[in-house]
Order: sequence, then C-alpha cells, then structure tokens
Amino acid sequence: MMELYIANKNYSSWSMRPWLVLTAFELPFREVLLPFPKERGTGHFKQDVLAINPNGKVPVLVHDGLMVWDSLAICEYLAEQFPERQLWPAGRAQRARARALAAEMHSGFQALRNHCGMNIRADLAEVGQTLWAEQPDLRDDVARVCQIWSERPDPGGFLCGDFSIADAFYAPVVWRLKSYALPVNEDSQYYMQTMLQHPAMQAWEQAAKQEQDWVNYLEPYQSEPSSS
Amino acid sequence: MMELYIANKNYSSWSMRPWLVLTAFELPFREVLLPFPKERGTGHFKQDVLAINPNGKVPVLVHDGLMVWDSLAICEYLAEQFPERQLWPAGRAQRARARALAAEMHSGFQALRNHCGMNIRADLAEVGQTLWAEQPDLRDDVARVCQIWSERPDPGGFLCGDFSIADAFYAPVVWRLKSYALPVNEDSQYYMQTMLQHPAMQAWEQAAKQEQDWVNYLEPYQSEPSSS
Repeated sequence: MMELYIANKNYSSWSMRPWLVLTAFELPFREVLLPFPKERGTGHFKQDVLAINPNGKVPVLVHDGLMVWDSLAICEYLAEQFPERQLWPAGRAQRARARALAAEMHSGFQALRNHCGMNIRADLAEVGQTLWAEQPDLRDDVARVCQIWSERPDPGGFLCGDFSIADAFYAPVVWRLKSYALPVNEDSQYYMQTMLQHPAMQAWEQAAKQEQDWVNYLEPYQSEPSSS
Repeated sequence: MMELYIANKNYSSWSMRPWLVLTAFELPFREVLLPFPKERGTGHFKQDVLAINPNGKVPVLVHDGLMVWDSLAICEYLAEQFPERQLWPAGRAQRARARALAAEMHSGFQALRNHCGMNIRADLAEVGQTLWAEQPDLRDDVARVCQIWSERPDPGGFLCGDFSIADAFYAPVVWRLKSYALPVNEDSQYYMQTMLQHPAMQAWEQAAKQEQDWVNYLEPYQSEPSSS
C-alpha cells in the first residue's frame, strides 16, 4: 500500500496535488496527515517530516520502500508506475502540453502564491478586491491562468481533455480564485465549476472544511475566531 | 531538426538546462538565441518570444510542429522521445530521485535565485560575502544544495550516477556558487569541478563569455564597464 504524507487540507496546496491524482485515478493509498504547527517553528511538524524526507517538506510518497518527494516528481512517479491509468494524456501533443502546464505552475505564479495563500474555508472576497486593485503582478498571474484555462481542447472538459495531472496542479488555483473572489472570464468560471464538481475535489473540500486547526502564519488576513 | 529558443547564455539559467541536456546527449538541434533587451520592457524580445510561445518565456522547444515550453517539460519530452539515450537514470529508485531533485529545483531555492542571479562572466565574490553574512535564507538554500550534492551514489560521479537531467537542473547553481564564491563543503566543491569539466558545460561557458550584451536589470551589483 502506498503512503502519502500531507499537511492540513485547508492550507496545503502542494499536498493537494498528488492526493487528488491518487484519489481521482482510484490508486489505493493510505493518507498520513502531519498538521502544520499553530506558530511557525513550533511543535513537532518539522521533525516529523524530517524523519521521512531530508528536505523537511510535504508531500511525500512512500512506495515499496522508496521515498519520493515533491508534488510533481510524485505525480511523474505514479504516471510511470501505473501507465494503464493514463495520468498524463495519451496523445503526444496533449501530453507535452499537460507537462508544460504542470511545470509552469510548479515554478511560477509567485504573486498569486504570495498574496493569495490557499485557504479553502475562508471568505476573503474583500481582501481579494484590495489585492486586485493594488497588485499588478497578481493581475498578470490571473490573466495567464485564464489564458491557460481558456485553451482547453473541449470547453466542457478538463485542461487537456480528460482529468489529468495538469488539472491537479491547477486545483489549488481554483480555490485561491474562489476564496479571494478574483474576477475571471466566463470560460474560466466554467472550468472552475467543472473542477469543483469533480468527486476528488469535493472529497478534499469536505475534509478541509472539517479541520479545526488554525495556523497563524498562514492567516495573514484574519484573526482567529474566539472559541467562546 | 529540433529548434531550441533560448536567451543570453551569460544570464539565462532556465535556457541553460534543456540546452545542456540536448548537447550532453548529442541530440541534434538548432539553437535560436533571442537576446534579452538592455532595459526591461524595451526592444523586441517579448514580441519575438510571444510569436512562438503564448506565455512569453524562454526556453521553447519546437519539434515536428509541436511547441513545448518550460525547461522541465522540455526535458521530460526529450526523455520520452529518445528513451534509448536514458536522459533520466535507468533504475526506478535513482530515476525517482532524479525527478524529485529536478522538480525541487524547479519550484524552490527562491533566495538563491533572487540574490544570486546567474552571471557566468562576473566575479561577484565581494557581493557574495556580504549576501552570505546578511541573508539567512540564502545560507539555508546553499545548505540544502550541499546536502543534495553530497548524497551522490558515487562521490566521483554525477547526482544520480551518470550525467542526467537532474545535473542540468543544478548546473546554473554551480555557476551561481562560483560567481558569488559562496562557501560550500569539500564534497560539493568536487561536484562543481566535475560539472565544470563536462564538455557541454564548457561549451556553454565559452559561448557565455563571448557574449557582449549587457542587461541592466540583470546586473544589480555592477555598472556597465565603459567601452572607451
């Protein structure tokens, strides 16, 4: 049985990607959730992760005694181990495009990442409005996302046809755009709906919304609600 | 014949990676160099790239009418098109590790990127000394690089055995550490020497040092030498 080590579903965009791939393609795995500490550098998160992965980060996949880290490398590993599932599109051109989309997301979109951390349960529409007005780099990132999402081969489908690793890589962006209510074109809204209706997305969303943990350093825009 | 669109060899770390892979594995290609403008946003660099790639970035590979962008996606495409060349290691474990190393570089090491832009011809040892003293994030990034470089299966060899895509992804870091003279452990120094002696690295270095272009926004630490 494969094991996937992840962090909080509400916050951890990197964890989300391989989890969605494993779930969407019905690959059996055991999930191990290592929650982020409430304050950065406290608690035992770092030492728990370091016990598995020397770079101290999640997600991590363990399979047949092999430890694979990094969300993209994990997905490539799964694609190779389970070729019959077609985690990447079957055709040469769409497969190359899917990999380019995933790798572009892996290395880019810094403004979107920095300003709009994934926070599934949050309603940050007002924050989003201010950010949108004040941050041209954020608007550039969203414009590029909308360009990518609007180039789907079938407007009713996923980024490269059927659901693939590429969609899992843009899934956290779906949540960022939703939580911060950033303006996107109609075609991108339709893609977001398609993604939000995917069973694997819904399973992740439901689990994220049930989490009770509050991580202060991932909540730059809100104060912790009083528990009284 | 494949075509690889790249920017200045002195500065463009993203361009360097697929170029090294194509060259090291003797895959025939035609290089198309689109030089960066002297000042950001001027000249015709952006429109030249946009004519090929809608995200406006290099490197770009064109093969059999297919346009593939992103340095990692290009390398995965090449690995798939030329399986007999073994661009990734042949064994399952080393291949997974090579992909994890390449993907970790693709998405991380922001401090090293931001503070120590690749500049092959430059001697920035004094700048490096100041950065080293003042930037803890930079020291963390270099510590992780040294950890990775010290885990080579054969201390006399490359990251995952023979030269692979993983090495091409760390090649720009070799130049960053050299130009800024950042302190690294002995084992990492040995890896740097191994890399600097690779024929593909030497060919890139020689071409980089022959370039005359000065790109102001990629030279935060130096003034343009007087031409008189």
